[in-house]
Amino acid sequence: MSQKMMLLSATLSSGYGVQGQAWRAPENDTRNLTDVEVQVKLAQTAERGKFAFLFAPDFPGARGDMENQAPASTLDPIVTLSVLAHETTRVGFIATGSTTYNEPYNLARQFKALDVLSRGRMGWNAVTTSDPIAVANYGEQVRPRAERYERAHEMITIVQALWGSWGEDAWVGDVDTGQFLDMDQIQPINLGGKHIASRGPLVIPPSEQGQPVVASAGGGEYGLGLAGRYASVAVGSSTYDFATTRQEREMYRSAAHQAGRDADELKYFTGFMPIMGSTVEEAIRRRMQMDEHLAPQRVPMLGQMLGLSLDASRADQPLSGPQLESARANPADPRSSRALEIAYQGWTPREILAHGVIDYAPSPVGPPEAIADYLQDAFEAGIADGFWLQQATYAIADDFVDEVVPILQKRGLYHRDYQGSTLREHLGVPRQYGQDPRVS
Amino acid sequence: MSQKMMLLSATLSSGYGVQGQAWRAPENDTRNLTDVEVQVKLAQTAERGKFAFLFAPDFPGARGDMENQAPASTLDPIVTLSVLAHETTRVGFIATGSTTYNEPYNLARQFKALDVLSRGRMGWNAVTTSDPIAVANYGEQVRPRAERYERAHEMITIVQALWGSWGEDAWVGDVDTGQFLDMDQIQPINLGGKHIASRGPLVIPPSEQGQPVVASAGGGEYGLGLAGRYASVAVGSSTYDFATTRQEREMYRSAAHQAGRDADELKYFTGFMPIMGSTVEEAIRRRMQMDEHLAPQRVPMLGQMLGLSLDASRADQPLSGPQLESARANPADPRSSRALEIAYQGWTPREILAHGVIDYAPSPVGPPEAIADYLQDAFEAGIADGFWLQQATYAIADDFVDEVVPILQKRGLYHRDYQGSTLREHLGVPRQYGQDPRVS
Repeated sequence: MSQKMMLLSATLSSGYGVQGQAWRAPENDTRNLTDVEVQVKLAQTAERGKFAFLFAPDFPGARGDMENQAPASTLDPIVTLSVLAHETTRVGFIATGSTTYNEPYNLARQFKALDVLSRGRMGWNAVTTSDPIAVANYGEQVRPRAERYERAHEMITIVQALWGSWGEDAWVGDVDTGQFLDMDQIQPINLGGKHIASRGPLVIPPSEQGQPVVASAGGGEYGLGLAGRYASVAVGSSTYDFATTRQEREMYRSAAHQAGRDADELKYFTGFMPIMGSTVEEAIRRRMQMDEHLAPQRVPMLGQMLGLSLDASRADQPLSGPQLESARANPADPRSSRALEIAYQGWTPREILAHGVIDYAPSPVGPPEAIADYLQDAFEAGIADGFWLQQATYAIADDFVDEVVPILQKRGLYHRDYQGSTLREHLGVPRQYGQDPRVS
Repeated sequence: MSQKMMLLSATLSSGYGVQGQAWRAPENDTRNLTDVEVQVKLAQTAERGKFAFLFAPDFPGARGDMENQAPASTLDPIVTLSVLAHETTRVGFIATGSTTYNEPYNLARQFKALDVLSRGRMGWNAVTTSDPIAVANYGEQVRPRAERYERAHEMITIVQALWGSWGEDAWVGDVDTGQFLDMDQIQPINLGGKHIASRGPLVIPPSEQGQPVVASAGGGEYGLGLAGRYASVAVGSSTYDFATTRQEREMYRSAAHQAGRDADELKYFTGFMPIMGSTVEEAIRRRMQMDEHLAPQRVPMLGQMLGLSLDASRADQPLSGPQLESARANPADPRSSRALEIAYQGWTPREILAHGVIDYAPSPVGPPEAIADYLQDAFEAGIADGFWLQQATYAIADDFVDEVVPILQKRGLYHRDYQGSTLREHLGVPRQYGQDPRVS
């Protein structure tokens, strides 16, 4: 019996964890930002957990409160992943690369080189760049959405054509005859659009999976159009209830179907940020250590979510009876009702916050069984093909792999080992080389 | 006594050697092109030889006779060097990166990330791109030389400013106060020119050498202008006599002086391609094995160099008396007189060619002492600060390191170990962070 199982992935960030304050967590060294060994260890952890891939979000610029928070991205995803690919053998990688501010030839070359280096474990998260901070690093003004997506289509089309421009059997390498390549199989692509063009060919042979997987993280009509045509992985937006997430998954599946593909060729991943400890109380205490200094900023935010006026001086007192009575979940904020529910349990504002109620992904709290229960419920509700671990600190990836993964395996929800060696095999998506002939 | 010693470097190519036919050499596996372990081994060999750096020429396109010859470049220099930097601790790296077809922010980020990853062992060979084959991969026509160099100046200026935009002491990382960065020291650069612009800052801290070294490989007035202002390493063109090479070195030194720098801050490297064996005869035999199939193409070329009509049927017969009498060195080809000299020694055309007479760099032939003699003569004649080994096959790098380097060390011409840990220390060039204030 071949039961469908969930897929898992984790997040490659600046070396501390996905929380900006993670650099202060006791388990982190403040110099992790420049220590690639920390990233190597994470990749090996993900591999120990039989994860499909490590996902590297990226932002080409300086944003956020860097006075107090670490940057969110690696120093550079290509540089970091080259090392990680060399130090692992099975786990896949998906790196974010802008369709707006790269030359297609350069991007195609680096990703395919990484795909060959990793023996077929690479993916490209193709995103348009619209944040004014990033755009200014390229000396530009933000381009209109329609134009950005027009260029994105051109980019992916040209990149995939370049990937396929070294024919699958072109590499002869016959010492006796002296033929290195069959040049009939290595031909220019001569593709161009309104924004970009490239002649090719690209001088890189196929990897074990042919060419990198394409992933897509954009939402909306334009984003769905892109994902439906080209992507094998959809990185879903963060939603806080099963119904909304399932609906988003269905939109992606339908976009793939409309583009002439099988909906199962597009795997939908949704994020989660577990708060782990041997008990709920320990999980909360651990998280509070890292968040300690955030009370002045976050307690008032919690107040807003609950329709109350709260400040940091009240961080460690449970809400009073009158406060609880007047508290209301903000219907415009899907996180509010959960915050209210936790407040009713008698926790202090600092503890409520330590449940992750204002994080960017659902945050199951408690012992490994509780995290596994959440994933089982979510998977059985059909909200996603895979779950993307957003570990607040890197140490949580180890805890998750060592304590939650075995439970999922025991329950028959998750594979006990990799079945194949490439990212396409891990995902269960078909081989592709060059452009997809079904998508024009 | 501190005697000035020569510097050494070697070439990172597609994994076979710098000769296009090296893939057929018995010591190579025909699949080396995609096996990064071959590159790792070369880097470790260069490190065993205490080389200053490994130099990665690059060409973003498919050129040459790929039906019979392997591509000259790595799959991608950034991907390959990321792995090599991780697998070594001392040797430096210089990778070629186009000033014409990169965004300054992207290039600055990748090179500085590599500089941090390698703990200060990275250099950027900044070249303009003018070959129509490469240019077409970017959907362009070849740009005029003046425009290419104008953009190159903008590129290097912006890249260096981005490198310096994270102040040297900006990284506080104080867990107690919660300050991660001192943002007063991390500021936008707001630089732009006629062709490119970037706001910055770049979110990467300094490496152990501050920022990557800049190298320059272009010649001519424009190239000298670029090297004089920015470069710490000049990769000289291939010349076949000491006087011409020394003259080129002096032109670079004078360009640095004119730009307001100390001429000693610009280290001039010239190439050489040793043909090694325990005797001259063995060296020639070994090279002939690799070149065996090239006779039909190369024997007529040799004829042209000597003013004779030769074809492959005569490859294995020494030149006749009448042929030797009518042979003349072509004054327009600096390689011709050496070819003639070797012909007079009685070698066959195939053997003359195996002396490397039509290679792109001077090719001393024979046992380790002969190679060391050549380098000693060249160094004492003041033709270069360093020599760039162009190993016909990668195996020659091992032979050179194991057999020639000890002789150079014994003669006091070459260091017995690294004195520092960064590329700047290996080269003996000053620290630089951000733009050079002397160069405007």
